[in-house]
Amino acid sequence: MATAARDTSDEGQIRGLFDGWLTALRAKDVNGRTAGYAADVVVFDVINPMQHVGLDGLRKRLEKWFSTFTSPIDCEMRDLSIAAGNDVAWCHFLNRFSGSTRAGGALDMWVRFTVCLRKIDGHWMVTHEHASVPFDVETGRASVDLAP
Amino acid sequence: MATAARDTSDEGQIRGLFDGWLTALRAKDVNGRTAGYAADVVVFDVINPMQHVGLDGLRKRLEKWFSTFTSPIDCEMRDLSIAAGNDVAWCHFLNRFSGSTRAGGALDMWVRFTVCLRKIDGHWMVTHEHASVPFDVETGRASVDLAP
Repeated sequence: MATAARDTSDEGQIRGLFDGWLTALRAKDVNGRTAGYAADVVVFDVINPMQHVGLDGLRKRLEKWFSTFTSPIDCEMRDLSIAAGNDVAWCHFLNRFSGSTRAGGALDMWVRFTVCLRKIDGHWMVTHEHASVPFDVETGRASVDLAP
Repeated sequence: MATAARDTSDEGQIRGLFDGWLTALRAKDVNGRTAGYAADVVVFDVINPMQHVGLDGLRKRLEKWFSTFTSPIDCEMRDLSIAAGNDVAWCHFLNRFSGSTRAGGALDMWVRFTVCLRKIDGHWMVTHEHASVPFDVETGRASVDLAP
C-alpha cells in the first residue's frame, strides 16, 4: 500500500512535531515529548514557578508529572492555529489531558498552549512555550475544570 | 534639541507598540491599549473564560478591569524577548501591574505574557495574546503573589 506523502512545508513540519509529542505523551516518554525543544527554551508552565529557563528544567518537570499517572496520558488537541514565516513561527491550541493518577483519581483538564519556534539549521525548534489555565477572579482558584 | 531617531526595524516597531501600551495603560485608555490588535485576535487571558475571540471581547474586558482602579495603572516590563521574522513575530515578557483599587486595596501582581504578531499591510498586528499566572498545585490557587 502507498504511504501518505510526508508534508515537508513549514506548517507540515510543525504539525509533525506535535504529532510526535502526542505519541510520546501517551507513552510517558520524556525524550520524545521534548523533541524539538531548544536547550535554552523559556517555559511559562501551568503550575509554579513563574518560569523555567532551559530544557533540563522542563525535563525534570515532565518526569515528575508523568510519574503521577498509572495510565497512559491521553491528549486531545483542538483549535490549532499556526503562523509560520521564513524562520520564526508561533502556534496556539487547546489540549485536553486525561488519565488515571496514582492518587486514585482521574485527571481531565483543558490547558491553553502557545508554542513559539525559530528555524535553526533548517529545523524548527521551540524556544518558548506558554501553557496555562485562567483563574476565577471571585475565588482566586485556578480553573482546572473549564472546557472550551 | 535633536529628537532620538525612531527605530523603524521590525523589533523597533514592536517595541514602539509596547511603549504605547504602557502609556495607555497608565491613562486607562482602552483605544491606546488595544492599538495594533487585529479584529480577530485570539486572547488567552489571565482570568476566565478559557479564551476571547475578537477585539470587542478584549476591549470589554479592559474597560471592566480599568474601572476597578482609582489610580493610574503602573506597569513594569522585564525580560522582553522578541523574535521577528519577515512577517511573523513573537515576544515574551513579564509585566508587574500595580495600582490602587476601588475595593480599597492595592494591586501588585506579576503576569507572564506571550504576544504573537503578523505583519499585515506593512504593520505588525497582534493576532494572538496569552497572559497568565501559574497556579500552586498543592492549594489549587492562582499564584497572584509570585515575583520573578
